Amino acid sequence: MEAVLRKPIRGFLLDITGVLYNSSPNSIGRAIPGSIEAVNRLYSESVVRFVSNESSESRHELANKLGKLGFKLNEEHIFTPAPVAVQYLKKNGLRPHLIVHKGAVQEFASVDQTNPNCVVMGDAEEDFTYEAMNSAFRLLHQLEDPLIVTLGFGKFYQRVDGPCLDLGGFAKALQYATDARIVTVGKPSESFFRTAIDDMGLSKDDVGLKTSHRVAISFCNIQI
Amino acid sequence: MEAVLRKPIRGFLLDITGVLYNSSPNSIGRAIPGSIEAVNRLYSESVVRFVSNESSESRHELANKLGKLGFKLNEEHIFTPAPVAVQYLKKNGLRPHLIVHKGAVQEFASVDQTNPNCVVMGDAEEDFTYEAMNSAFRLLHQLEDPLIVTLGFGKFYQRVDGPCLDLGGFAKALQYATDARIVTVGKPSESFFRTAIDDMGLSKDDVGLKTSHRVAISFCNIQI
Repeated sequence: MEAVLRKPIRGFLLDITGVLYNSSPNSIGRAIPGSIEAVNRLYSESVVRFVSNESSESRHELANKLGKLGFKLNEEHIFTPAPVAVQYLKKNGLRPHLIVHKGAVQEFASVDQTNPNCVVMGDAEEDFTYEAMNSAFRLLHQLEDPLIVTLGFGKFYQRVDGPCLDLGGFAKALQYATDARIVTVGKPSESFFRTAIDDMGLSKDDVGLKTSHRVAISFCNIQI
Repeated sequence: MEAVLRKPIRGFLLDITGVLYNSSPNSIGRAIPGSIEAVNRLYSESVVRFVSNESSESRHELANKLGKLGFKLNEEHIFTPAPVAVQYLKKNGLRPHLIVHKGAVQEFASVDQTNPNCVVMGDAEEDFTYEAMNSAFRLLHQLEDPLIVTLGFGKFYQRVDGPCLDLGGFAKALQYATDARIVTVGKPSESFFRTAIDDMGLSKDDVGLKTSHRVAISFCNIQI
């Protein structure tokens, strides 16, 4: 424990939603007081990367939105699951049936989606309709080795209007009905945190965290 | 095993959806070939009870629908979870927030629903919207001892247009997000099968089954 406290922090890994700002279904959301100043200070004193399961918009759009809220950050420092999922799908010959937010559909444009052999789930929010869930269920139900790839596995997240169900539960629903395997890209997957830390050119022991994910906390050997 | 095969069957417990008929979202559904004759024969030769997790309509309406499909059965021989849930709620001082099919709301008219302290879930089908799920989540999220009462816990069921997601998965979704306790009224709860068997005046060892539920099969000591 003492060794952990003594070690110097050389970089920071920050969550976005609920840490930098609270999202809103009808607007760009609201910066959390103090977070803009905190990001400026961390940027000036060390290395910063942002890890987010936001999959309702591209990394570019997300950076733009945060810019409008007052944050000065480099979009190349933002890690979101959709591009990682695209790599995973292509590498494994997977053709997805998508249940993702309207804003995320475009991220999968380069992936073959004919004759789907898996389901990809993002934070579809209002698009988690019974019809959408049932379509995904029917596909998984007829696959020999049903597979769900999820862009995160959160329980809930904060929105301006209150806490909201995240996609983890909806993935659990389809898994219960079909006994599907689940592969999670994004938080709390350890490899997702590792990708961001590797990009800093640091070791995980050099990194400070601001995320609610126990996996990350344990991964970086931080005791709480 | 031999003892089981030799014992006389004195009564039958039959499922309804997927055994007597396949439901349909836009019509009364379709009788499964041979099932009308089978019910007539069982009624004439022994005692019959029907156990169903249908909660989109009252027992009376369900009996009427089956009558229109050609079945001759006594509505008092049908066991559905909603009336059992109402008893459970009243006995335990529970005030439900409902996510049930429109047709089932009336079944809970006698229960106090002000200031809810639990969630009751039925097969809401198209009413399993993100908004409805999120409302239930927000209630459970703020309760000290979050509780979900489910009218069944099925994985999926057959509808004329194909297999459909049942409520078990949706209950799992809310449980994952809130760590809620779940109490299941209806299949596959053992006490639900016991209520129907008690009503026959028989022992569980006297009963033959036509249901896909392993709990019932194990409960009645039937080997498959």
